[in-house]
Amino acid sequence: MNFEDKLTRYARVLVEVGLRLEPGDRLLVKAGIDAVPLVRLVTEAAYRIGAVNVDVIWSDSETKRARYTHGPDAAVEELPLDALVYERTAERGDSFLNIVTEDPELLSDIDPGAVARSQQAFVKGTMNFQTKLMSLQSIWCIVAAPSPSWAARVFPDMPVDEAMERLWEAVFATCRVPADDPVEAWRSHLSGLDARCAHLSGRRYDALRYEGPGTDLVIGLPPGHTWVAGAGGKRGSVPNLPTEEVFTSPDRMRAAGVVRATKPLSYFGTLIEGFEFRFEDGAVVEARAASGQDALDRILAMDDGALRLGEAALVPQSSLVAAQSLVWRNTLFDENDASHLALGRAYPICLEGGTAMSPEEQLAAGLNHSDVHVDFVIGSDRLDVFGVHADGTEEPLLRAGEWAFDV
Amino acid sequence: MNFEDKLTRYARVLVEVGLRLEPGDRLLVKAGIDAVPLVRLVTEAAYRIGAVNVDVIWSDSETKRARYTHGPDAAVEELPLDALVYERTAERGDSFLNIVTEDPELLSDIDPGAVARSQQAFVKGTMNFQTKLMSLQSIWCIVAAPSPSWAARVFPDMPVDEAMERLWEAVFATCRVPADDPVEAWRSHLSGLDARCAHLSGRRYDALRYEGPGTDLVIGLPPGHTWVAGAGGKRGSVPNLPTEEVFTSPDRMRAAGVVRATKPLSYFGTLIEGFEFRFEDGAVVEARAASGQDALDRILAMDDGALRLGEAALVPQSSLVAAQSLVWRNTLFDENDASHLALGRAYPICLEGGTAMSPEEQLAAGLNHSDVHVDFVIGSDRLDVFGVHADGTEEPLLRAGEWAFDV
Repeated sequence: MNFEDKLTRYARVLVEVGLRLEPGDRLLVKAGIDAVPLVRLVTEAAYRIGAVNVDVIWSDSETKRARYTHGPDAAVEELPLDALVYERTAERGDSFLNIVTEDPELLSDIDPGAVARSQQAFVKGTMNFQTKLMSLQSIWCIVAAPSPSWAARVFPDMPVDEAMERLWEAVFATCRVPADDPVEAWRSHLSGLDARCAHLSGRRYDALRYEGPGTDLVIGLPPGHTWVAGAGGKRGSVPNLPTEEVFTSPDRMRAAGVVRATKPLSYFGTLIEGFEFRFEDGAVVEARAASGQDALDRILAMDDGALRLGEAALVPQSSLVAAQSLVWRNTLFDENDASHLALGRAYPICLEGGTAMSPEEQLAAGLNHSDVHVDFVIGSDRLDVFGVHADGTEEPLLRAGEWAFDV
Repeated sequence: MNFEDKLTRYARVLVEVGLRLEPGDRLLVKAGIDAVPLVRLVTEAAYRIGAVNVDVIWSDSETKRARYTHGPDAAVEELPLDALVYERTAERGDSFLNIVTEDPELLSDIDPGAVARSQQAFVKGTMNFQTKLMSLQSIWCIVAAPSPSWAARVFPDMPVDEAMERLWEAVFATCRVPADDPVEAWRSHLSGLDARCAHLSGRRYDALRYEGPGTDLVIGLPPGHTWVAGAGGKRGSVPNLPTEEVFTSPDRMRAAGVVRATKPLSYFGTLIEGFEFRFEDGAVVEARAASGQDALDRILAMDDGALRLGEAALVPQSSLVAAQSLVWRNTLFDENDASHLALGRAYPICLEGGTAMSPEEQLAAGLNHSDVHVDFVIGSDRLDVFGVHADGTEEPLLRAGEWAFDV
């Protein structure tokens, strides 16, 4: 199979698995200009299925950067005009495909305050679009396409052509492009994840216990918590591709013990390495990093919720993402690379009735609130995870990083 | 000067001459993705001058084509969502830079009816934007940047890299990029054109007489006609770069004689070659082409106005565009390559008070109406043009293709 064939299959996975596109759909694609060949194939595939319209919003990283580097202070708060397009598509219910190509360090030398103000202006100006996305009322899918700048971050020692080729191969592998029938392979994988979720939710554990080198942690789970996996989008669409994780929301008041990260954390361009936390009564009481201590402290100081947990996700070490053994520098992949926890905001979809609750009710039910949501990886082939019942009995969930129960 | 230097100078010409950008301006750029390096430089130049915001609408030819080749019939009438962006910028008075990169034959194999329906939908959905453009109430500038597909049409026998290089050199040359101070060179050139216009308008000729091989034509000029040149945009901006022509609107009822085209005419992908017209009482009564007769007949059959003249433009053979000796396959250049006439719609700006007249008043004053405006080139180094006074006395305007009067 040559590159063109693989790219064609990838486009088919995005349209048929990610978006579950149907005849009569309208599609909005957002893409970096490095993704031109992929976008052309996606457009063609969407029309073949019977889309009535495909619109594309292209973006160029350098032009985006210029707003910060050459524009006046006020420019970063200008609402980019494509906001109008997002709002219109939200109004009429278009599906949305976001193809991310960006250099993970594009804005690493820019004042984080300016970046935040820009993001706030955009979120404010696309409120209808954002709301429909977050509440899964619209069909959307975020995926990646390698660009030279991203590939160079992942493979800094290689010539850029070779880095691009390697990164594309890794993306294809994680998206099941080499399978005999990639779409069928995805259906099977997604129903496997759903079965894991159904099993875990059905066990109604009171807590999770993590055990590994430097890690000895118990995290409470609230009554009514549910486990969620990738294909939770509207009409069976998959909001992120690839997807390997199953996750739930911890009880914000119950976490105790120590946990050591097994991978560095990149936060607005700063790499935080070799870090560990000690939790008491759900909150971080000690945080130490071999490097990047300042950045780590900044995260924890964002608000009260930044000290507490908002997500617990399980990923087996043999997952297709982990199998690539890469530091992806891209959340889409790093999130699916290994078991992880997140500081900050919890997902209301991980609690029965959670999306219908008021913020106060969510807090009372144990869901954490915060302006941040920062994932950090704790998975390894030496991590064991147990489901703990209220009576103290335990059942193995992961052993040496692999699933320890059948579905 | 290396390519990067020239491109930087070109960007400066577009921003400072084409748009006359001032601090506090907002700028919308539309560009093909082949123009990425130029757009980055334009964005930077605009911010340096003090633009408060630069937005870019990118387009990809192949994705645009897919609407016709893979979309359902109705797709071509879908309003592209960037229409929302155009309308918003028109509302708030942004300046507009259109960087054209497109393969001139991109849609040559597409049903012309579908292309027309698509254009109509776009025009209808961007009425406010179009109106502000046509009436020069907004600042706008259309320019070109070579793409591989366009370069290959101009230099079909060259490797594409060489063709790109040649076409860029030609574009740079016509845009005065190699001058010591390109912006100053433009100011001087534009005031030269303005002086020609002032002189010609002041002479109040009753008619123009054209004489050359196969050409012996007299075209009446309506009372109150004015001559217009490139820098007629708002605040001294230049709607098209490069610009070499000075033009006016003929009297739609007065044209008599024969005229032979000196260059082929490309119309929706068909090349019309070796053609000539015979006029009586302002209308074409005979049209013959060595090839492309069908396409020529189709133009003339569009409506009543398609048989009459809407523009008479004078360009000296020594103009920087003509000096490149190319068939540009791009109206921006072909229009400025040599003296030409146009069948169809006249410009109300070429008549005193014309823009304030009702359509009926414009017709009565001699301005032609039509849905089409098709330029055809009649200039050569063997063309003489005379200004004819009402008493029959004549003054030479072009002799052997060069200006024959001083200003």
